[in-house]
This record gives sequence, C-alpha cells and structure tokens, in this order.
Amino acid sequence: LAGAADPEVLSLSLGLPDPELFPVDAFAEASARALGRHRNVLQYGLPCERLKRQICAHMAQRGVDCSPDRIFLTGGAQQGMHLLAGLLLDRRSAVLEEELTYPGFQQAIDRYDPDIITIPCTTREGLVVEAVERAFARVPRPALLYIMTDGHNPLGVSLDLEKRRRLALLAREYHVPICEDDAYGFLCYEEARLPPVRAAEDEWVYYIGSFAKVLAPSLRVGWLVVPPDLMRPLSVLKEAWDINTSSYTQWMLAEYLDTGALPAHIQSLCVAYRAKRDAMHAALCAAMPPGCRWTLPSNGVFVWIDLPDGVDASALLNEAIQRERVAFLPAEAFSRGRRRNGMRLNFSHCTIAEIAEAVARIGRMLRFAMA
Amino acid sequence: LAGAADPEVLSLSLGLPDPELFPVDAFAEASARALGRHRNVLQYGLPCERLKRQICAHMAQRGVDCSPDRIFLTGGAQQGMHLLAGLLLDRRSAVLEEELTYPGFQQAIDRYDPDIITIPCTTREGLVVEAVERAFARVPRPALLYIMTDGHNPLGVSLDLEKRRRLALLAREYHVPICEDDAYGFLCYEEARLPPVRAAEDEWVYYIGSFAKVLAPSLRVGWLVVPPDLMRPLSVLKEAWDINTSSYTQWMLAEYLDTGALPAHIQSLCVAYRAKRDAMHAALCAAMPPGCRWTLPSNGVFVWIDLPDGVDASALLNEAIQRERVAFLPAEAFSRGRRRNGMRLNFSHCTIAEIAEAVARIGRMLRFAMA
Repeated sequence: LAGAADPEVLSLSLGLPDPELFPVDAFAEASARALGRHRNVLQYGLPCERLKRQICAHMAQRGVDCSPDRIFLTGGAQQGMHLLAGLLLDRRSAVLEEELTYPGFQQAIDRYDPDIITIPCTTREGLVVEAVERAFARVPRPALLYIMTDGHNPLGVSLDLEKRRRLALLAREYHVPICEDDAYGFLCYEEARLPPVRAAEDEWVYYIGSFAKVLAPSLRVGWLVVPPDLMRPLSVLKEAWDINTSSYTQWMLAEYLDTGALPAHIQSLCVAYRAKRDAMHAALCAAMPPGCRWTLPSNGVFVWIDLPDGVDASALLNEAIQRERVAFLPAEAFSRGRRRNGMRLNFSHCTIAEIAEAVARIGRMLRFAMA
Repeated sequence: LAGAADPEVLSLSLGLPDPELFPVDAFAEASARALGRHRNVLQYGLPCERLKRQICAHMAQRGVDCSPDRIFLTGGAQQGMHLLAGLLLDRRSAVLEEELTYPGFQQAIDRYDPDIITIPCTTREGLVVEAVERAFARVPRPALLYIMTDGHNPLGVSLDLEKRRRLALLAREYHVPICEDDAYGFLCYEEARLPPVRAAEDEWVYYIGSFAKVLAPSLRVGWLVVPPDLMRPLSVLKEAWDINTSSYTQWMLAEYLDTGALPAHIQSLCVAYRAKRDAMHAALCAAMPPGCRWTLPSNGVFVWIDLPDGVDASALLNEAIQRERVAFLPAEAFSRGRRRNGMRLNFSHCTIAEIAEAVARIGRMLRFAMA
C-alpha cells in the first residue's frame, strides 16, 4: 500500500475498488440514521442480528440458503480468514493451498508454521481437483483447503460447475474443511452465474464473505457462513483479539442495506468493471508481445498474464516503476517465490484511459525486455 | 456481554461507559465531515498521520512526550494488547501478570501457552514492585510485564509515584518490556495526577491507549506508543490479521479531535463519574455488612470489595441474579480461579439511582449469606 502511493506511477498492483463508485452519499445518510437510532450504537455490543438477517438475504442472491445462526460477523474478510486459521490450525498442521494464491491467506496462516501442501492450478481452469483428491487421500487430517471459486486472486479464473460439485463432495467425503473466499463472487460480468461451493455443502465448506469489493473496504465489516457449532469458539477468539466489531459500522451497514440499494449498486459496479475489463483486454491485445497469454475473467478485478519461460516479472518490476512509471504485482508474490514468469494486473481502480496507458507501458517494457 | 442483556437485572458487571455521555451529535458531524473530505476515506488506507499527530497532543495532556513515528494505530486497546502478545510471545514464554488482572489480557496471551509468573498486588497499593524486581532477577528473559498504572481493573487502585519510578528503572535495568494499559488514566477524579510509567521510560515501556472510555467503545480505534523499531513488525502482524483499521473511523476521530472538544468532554466525564463513584461509596457505607472493605478509586470505573475469608463471590452470583436481580463480577474472573472472596463493581454505566439500588441489593444478599 505504501509503495502504491507515488502519484506519478500508474499502478495496476493492488485490488482497490474504484473510489468514484463508493456510495458516499448513501453512507452519509446511513451513518446519520445509525447514530440517530440509539445511543448504544456507540457502546460495546453483541453482533447486530438485523445485519445477520440482511446478510442471509444477500447470500440468497448468491444462491446460498443459510440462517442467521450461521453468520459470524467479522472485522473484514482478512480477519475472517485469520479467525478460521486460529480455529483450525495447530503448529505444523497440513494446509492445502494453490500454487498461486492470495498472499493475505499465506500471511494469515504462516505464523502457525504450517506444512503446506501445494495444489497445482492452471491459468484457464483454476485449481486441479484431481490433485485435491489425491492430497485428501494421502495426507492425514489436513486442517483446511483454501479456495477462491470465482474471480480467483491472482488468476481471475472461475471454477466450472463440475469442479464445484466435486469439491463439495470431497470435503464431505474426507471431512476436510474448505475455506471458500468469495470476495469477488458478486462481481460477475457474464450472464451465466454459478453458486459458490458452499451452496452445495453446508457442513464442510466455510464461506468467507466481504463487503470490501461490493461497497467499500473501509467499514471493515465482513462475515463467515459456518456451521452453528463454530459460532462459540469463533466468538471466544474474536473477543480475545479485538472484543467486538464496531457496533456503529455494523448498524451503518444495516441502515444502508435496509434501503434495498445494494443489488442495484452491485449491478452498476458490474457494468463499470466490465467496461474496464474489456478496455484492459483491448489494450493487451494491442500492446503485448508474442508469447504472452491472458484470459478474460468472468469475475473479479484481476487479469493474469502468463509470460514466456525465462521472463522474470520480479526482475522487471523495478525497471517498470523507474523507467515506465507503471506497476504490477509479479508472480513471485503469489507463489511463495516459486514462480517468476507471470504478473497480475488490476482493472478496477484506474480509469479506462489510465488502464490503456498503463498496459501500453507494460507492453513496451516487455517488448524491450524480450527483444 | 450476553449475560448482561437481561433488562430486569441491575448489572454492575461490565466496564461499560454511560451511553448518555457519548458525544453523539459531535460524532454525527465528524462522520459527515470525514465522508465529505475525500472519497478515499472509504478506501483501504495507510494509518492516518493526522490522527497520529492528534494522539501525540493527547498524550502530552497525560504527561507523555512522544512523536508520531512512535504511534501505532490499532483496532482498539484489546487489539493493541493482542498485537504486543503476538510480537513478544513465543510458546512457553514467561509472562508476568498480577494476581488480580484484566481478563482480556489473559485471553490475549493464553493461546501462546505462556509460563505465568504471578505478581502479588494489594487492594490499597496495587502491584508489589519488590516482587517484580525479584521476578526480573530470577526469571530468564521474561517476555513482558502487564500493568495498569491508574484505575486498575479490577482493583481500582492507582500506583504511587515511587512505584512508577521503580518500575521504569526496573524495565530499563532488566530489559523487560512493560506493557502499560492506560484505559483509565484520563478518567481521574482527584486534583493530584501522576503521569504513566511510559513518561519516564520510552524504550522499555509500551503504552496501550484507548478512546473507548473517554469517547466511545464503538469506533474501535486505539493506539500503542512504542519504540520506532517496533512499527514495522507490528504493521506486518496487523496486515496479516485484518489488513488495516477502518480509514473512515480513523478520519471520523480525526475530525472530532480537530474540533478541540476532547479535553472538555473528558472533564465532563470526570465530573459525572466522580459523582457516581461517590454515590457508590455512600451506598456501600450504608449497605455493606461488617468485614467487607473497599477503597475509593482516584481513577477509572471500578470499586473492588474485599470480602471476609470464606465468602465465595462466585457462589453468590447466581443467587444475586436470580433472587436480588443484581449482577457483579466475582474475584474468580480476574485471578484465574484462585481467589474467591472479592467482587468488582462498576459505577460508570448505571444511573446514580440504579447504583444505590444495586448496592443495597448486594448488601442485603451479603448480610443474608454472612449471617
């Protein structure tokens, strides 16, 4: 975040939403209503039951049927992940993660010194379910498998229906919890939409939900959908870590959701981000040298570029920032240093004009480096 | 918190502020100004530098001279404690805690399975510094000593100047970090005010600050004052745990502090809580049976009652709730179950009339139990 702050550099590095699309006025009204409702919105408080019910309605839009006794409110998806890690991991637990995955997940688990079982994934089809099955069969009692079903970070890929079905069955068959991070599930740019794995398996899939990408990151309120018997141990952990999530921001969200504006807001985000995605694709087609490959994501905010063997994105990053004034995240950041020939580009934060310019700069740099 | 929710029971159990004293209107204005300032208050963000500078000015009121490069913003004091535990503790680290101490601290450290060295403390004078010195001399490399210098929770006691001086010197001499939780330092009901231990030692005392008791618990923004070399490792932990504290609530606080209203607000809290403290003292004088002792606290929101040997506050609690419809916290909750003959009463949350009635009920129950 600190590195992205240089205003001279066009940054496609982070997964930031477009601030022009934040519902600032609606939030200001929601804040005023929350503060006007009851003085206890400023007190320590129990999780907001009204917000839990609204989240159940939100989950129904995603094809997930769940009740408020399964909704655990968090201080954002990262805390949700950290809480699940705290609950499920002992030192040296076996954790299954994809060979390219979200660095925030790696940060959340690494303090437990886990035994990491790496699951291969492909740029076009995502995680290889056969490898999951082999690992479940081979490894005694894995603590969890972490997946991003839609709009994978960094690959942008979404899993097909068959993979979702098999993952749900495998979790149930082997009794291994799947932690399904659905930060990007609601940001879908195609007509065909599939429900998350959680829709097919309510006992062994723990769903990590977030408002950061569909509303704003700054309220720091997210949720988990978990079996009811996890609610109490999660509460004990959460109390020890930060007592409770702000009652005020919970009520502010509840007031916002009560207006019924969220589905239309998400729809408008999808229209705007689809246009940005398409602009990035067009710019890539014009700028990328031969040998670079990418796929158009149906969900989320990232395009992944596979670079030819031997092209080291990390080695190019400094030059990109210094000479071309453009930034991206190299494959190294997602692969625990194992993969070099790839990069992640974000298309949600910059304007369409900036995306076109940034991609042109990256293309120029790559042509020069690969010449 | 769930147990305190029965409206029929007069609860002196928790350390809740009086919601009537929350600056609701000022917060509503601060929220509107924060949202009007820049859309990026809803974005992911770096810690708010303006808020750090304002906290330095706030600390100066407390007699502590520090610069923004020593202010680490947290999601509240509990998270501050948890971050320091995460930074300082390995499994089986030696931790020094008082025989009666804040349960939230115990929760924050217990997952590290620490070796707990118990430091005695007295109802009238607080922690026994000679015992700290003996432990520092005896135990190899203790990870930390946790103290509450003013308005101790649960004892209500504040340390005298000599103890503060010696603690500062001991931390420096033995290179043992003292984590000084100052949740109640600003709530002072006497003319004579002493600075915290941190004022005398800037390298080995880590200060845990909170707005929960002087403004409202619900913003979930607190701070640490730590040596600059701790800022980066704390940032790495915080990012892994919840990415960042809400930029919005940080800016809302900054807007509130910018009005300059905080010192007068704290003054008005002190006037109101002093009246409640005095009302509780008068009620205790009228209601308590012989053999019960308590002290008038100069700071904070708690009065501690020493009960005669053999009187088990935990055993009485159920009866108190069921028959007398009144609640308190028993000594057991603060002593890892070792102490039974004591109870903590809160005087900040209830009205003066409720305090008088609640104390009368507790006195009746104790007279009956001790008859």
